[in-house]
Amino acid sequence: MTRFFVTPEEMTGDTILLTGENAAHAKVLRLKEGEQVLVCDGQGCECLCAVTEAGAKETVVEILERRTSETEAAVRVSVYLAFPKADKLEHVIQKATELGAAEIIAFPSARCVSRPDEKSLKKKLERWQKIASSAAEQSGRGVIPQVRVLGSLAEALKQGREGDLALMFYENEQATTLRMALSARKYRTVSLLTGPEGGLEEKEVAHAMDAGWQVCTLGKRILRCETAPLCALSAVMYDAGEF
Amino acid sequence: MTRFFVTPEEMTGDTILLTGENAAHAKVLRLKEGEQVLVCDGQGCECLCAVTEAGAKETVVEILERRTSETEAAVRVSVYLAFPKADKLEHVIQKATELGAAEIIAFPSARCVSRPDEKSLKKKLERWQKIASSAAEQSGRGVIPQVRVLGSLAEALKQGREGDLALMFYENEQATTLRMALSARKYRTVSLLTGPEGGLEEKEVAHAMDAGWQVCTLGKRILRCETAPLCALSAVMYDAGEF
Repeated sequence: MTRFFVTPEEMTGDTILLTGENAAHAKVLRLKEGEQVLVCDGQGCECLCAVTEAGAKETVVEILERRTSETEAAVRVSVYLAFPKADKLEHVIQKATELGAAEIIAFPSARCVSRPDEKSLKKKLERWQKIASSAAEQSGRGVIPQVRVLGSLAEALKQGREGDLALMFYENEQATTLRMALSARKYRTVSLLTGPEGGLEEKEVAHAMDAGWQVCTLGKRILRCETAPLCALSAVMYDAGEF
Repeated sequence: MTRFFVTPEEMTGDTILLTGENAAHAKVLRLKEGEQVLVCDGQGCECLCAVTEAGAKETVVEILERRTSETEAAVRVSVYLAFPKADKLEHVIQKATELGAAEIIAFPSARCVSRPDEKSLKKKLERWQKIASSAAEQSGRGVIPQVRVLGSLAEALKQGREGDLALMFYENEQATTLRMALSARKYRTVSLLTGPEGGLEEKEVAHAMDAGWQVCTLGKRILRCETAPLCALSAVMYDAGEF
């Protein structure tokens, strides 16, 4: 079923007005009166609706049923990654959204070859958030993951530590597997952290351990910086019983 | 350690000659005499070597130790996917290689919007195989996965069925999870099969079941055709104890 995202405020009445890009999308789909669609607030609440007026500029839908989104994962995973090159970050945002991440947080680390300057950041964040929205729509999610940027690894280590499990992936770690880390305790919130193209520095890994992060391996093969977070996320969702 | 792939024949003596692209790569790296490198036959056998002659056009290395590659997965996973658009197929080849797939097999299915014509196929296969080689080198694998093309879904269903487990992923399947399918029996060889952009047809899924494939879900979110095989492969590697 087609899915539209609106703001929570737009979902308070008995009918919802689809405007702007949503209206344009509705027009492309040639929605007819009576047809059913899903309207979501992007925060986990969704409405089953029927089209009542399919106009050229606006489409009105009537709310038939209001419910909690059924496609969200029970586990809340935050994906922390050191800034990779721009196209790779966009790739991770799209795929992590499909795979069910709750949020995606980029930060600079010592070996980052690419980091956006302050000036362009606002525009870039808008673009990244749009990629997440679009992937959420296509994959049928009820929540649009928030894309955020932090100023340093230290901040990422601090924020990410608040969940039940905080896991950093490091290519030189051999003893502790992701499986061991996940079986250490029951979890409902997990933070995953991966490095940039050039990897994490030993010093950075030591900082993470001091901050209470568990350092673990994703196996014997070296994964690219855009592959590692998605591999880890897939495995966590699998471990958590999502599929 | 830097890794070069040569043919098994080139690895039979006490020394190995690095030529062509390998020699060019060695030159870029400014390898010096005495420096150690790994030379692999791409089939799971590798040699620890020391550079004895670092020339402009050729580099000679001496074999110090001959061993079985240590970076290969114990489980052999074949990734069957219906032809997606070209860039997506290349993406899956690269990522599936990093993630440890044994082979990647593309085939046409009913809703494929894109399939290479016979004429261009040979060139394309060469290109795809090169992508796999390059990803194998970068991720430190000892085996270069073979990239193959089959003429039909029926052939894929037949060949893929030979392993311990043959799993097809279908968005309308809700009952059987990947976890259930993997826990059905011990496995050392697994075939994973995913559809094209438009998904698999109900009829195709029925054929797969008739052919002995287990149909299962990758969760409540709809994954893109290039995301599904990599998500499934990551989860299988995790389940098999790779990380």
